[in-house]
Amino acid sequence: MKRKQFDHLECCMARAIDELADPWSLVILRDCLLGATRFGEFEARLGITSSTLTRRLDQLVVQGYLQREGYDERPPRDEYQLTDKGRAVLPVLVLLADFGKTWLFPDGPPLELVDRVTEEAVEPVVTDRRTGVPIQAGSLTLKAGKGASPRLREALNQHTYVLGRAEA
Amino acid sequence: MKRKQFDHLECCMARAIDELADPWSLVILRDCLLGATRFGEFEARLGITSSTLTRRLDQLVVQGYLQREGYDERPPRDEYQLTDKGRAVLPVLVLLADFGKTWLFPDGPPLELVDRVTEEAVEPVVTDRRTGVPIQAGSLTLKAGKGASPRLREALNQHTYVLGRAEA
Repeated sequence: MKRKQFDHLECCMARAIDELADPWSLVILRDCLLGATRFGEFEARLGITSSTLTRRLDQLVVQGYLQREGYDERPPRDEYQLTDKGRAVLPVLVLLADFGKTWLFPDGPPLELVDRVTEEAVEPVVTDRRTGVPIQAGSLTLKAGKGASPRLREALNQHTYVLGRAEA
Repeated sequence: MKRKQFDHLECCMARAIDELADPWSLVILRDCLLGATRFGEFEARLGITSSTLTRRLDQLVVQGYLQREGYDERPPRDEYQLTDKGRAVLPVLVLLADFGKTWLFPDGPPLELVDRVTEEAVEPVVTDRRTGVPIQAGSLTLKAGKGASPRLREALNQHTYVLGRAEA
C-alpha cells in the first residue's frame, strides 16, 4: 500500500494528490473509462509490465476505485469494474485531457473529446453547480471544514487564502 | 528532467498525466496558487527536503509552469511566479480538492472551498463551455485530432470509444 505522504498537510487537495497523482494508476483508470476491464487488455494497451500492472490493480481495488469480479472459473480470471469512486475520477481526467490538448501538443493534439451526440468538440470548464459561474483565479477562498484541527482553524483566522491570487 | 513515460499512448490525457501526476509538483503548484513564491515558504509549508524542492522547482521552471525572478541581490534570491500554463492547473486542483472532500474524509473535510464574495461552499462541476451542460459518463467520445497518427485514425475508425461506458 502506498504511503500517505501528505497527511500532515490537512488539505483535501493534497490528500487527493496523495491517492491519485500516480501516473500508472491514472492511465489504468483512463483505460477503465474507455471500456477496458481485463488484465490482458490493460497490458496490451499500456505497455506496462505485468508486475507493475498487478501491483496497481491491487492498489486500486484496496483504495476502492475498482472492484474485482470473476468472469471465468477454469482458469480463474477476474475483471475490473469501476466503482462509484472510480467513476468520480472522470471529470479530473477530462480536465487533464483538455490541459494536455491546450498546453502539451504544439503541433496539434492526437485526439479531441467530442460530444457523443453532436460530435462537436467540447470545451470543459469548471463551474459552480449552484450558480453556473466558471471557477477561476481569484474566485475561491478557503474555510475551515468539519474535520479541521484547531491549528488549521487558527491559521485560517490569521490569513485569507484566495486561490490564484498572491494576496487577499 | 523527467522521462516521458506515455509518449507511445498518443493521448492528451496520458501526456498531461506524464507531466502532472507527480505528488510534489502538484502540491508545490497548490502552494503557488495559495500565494507562496519563495523557497523558504514552500519548505516551511510542505515539509519537503531542500534537495527535492530544488529539483521540483527546477523541473517546473523547465516545463514552463513557473518562472524564476530575482528579488534580492545580496545574497541572490529568487521567487517563483506562476506562468499562464501554471495558472491553467487551477481547475484541475479545484476538482482534486472536491474529489478529496467527497471521497477521502469520512469524518468531514478539514477545508471547504467557498466563493470569495458570498462565502458559500462551491460545488465544482465540469461543464461544456458552449452548452453549459455537465460532462458525465457516457456523454463524450473521441475523435482523431490534427496530430493523430495513421494508426490512431485507423483504431478510431474501427471502434467508438465512449468515456465512462463499456460499449458504444
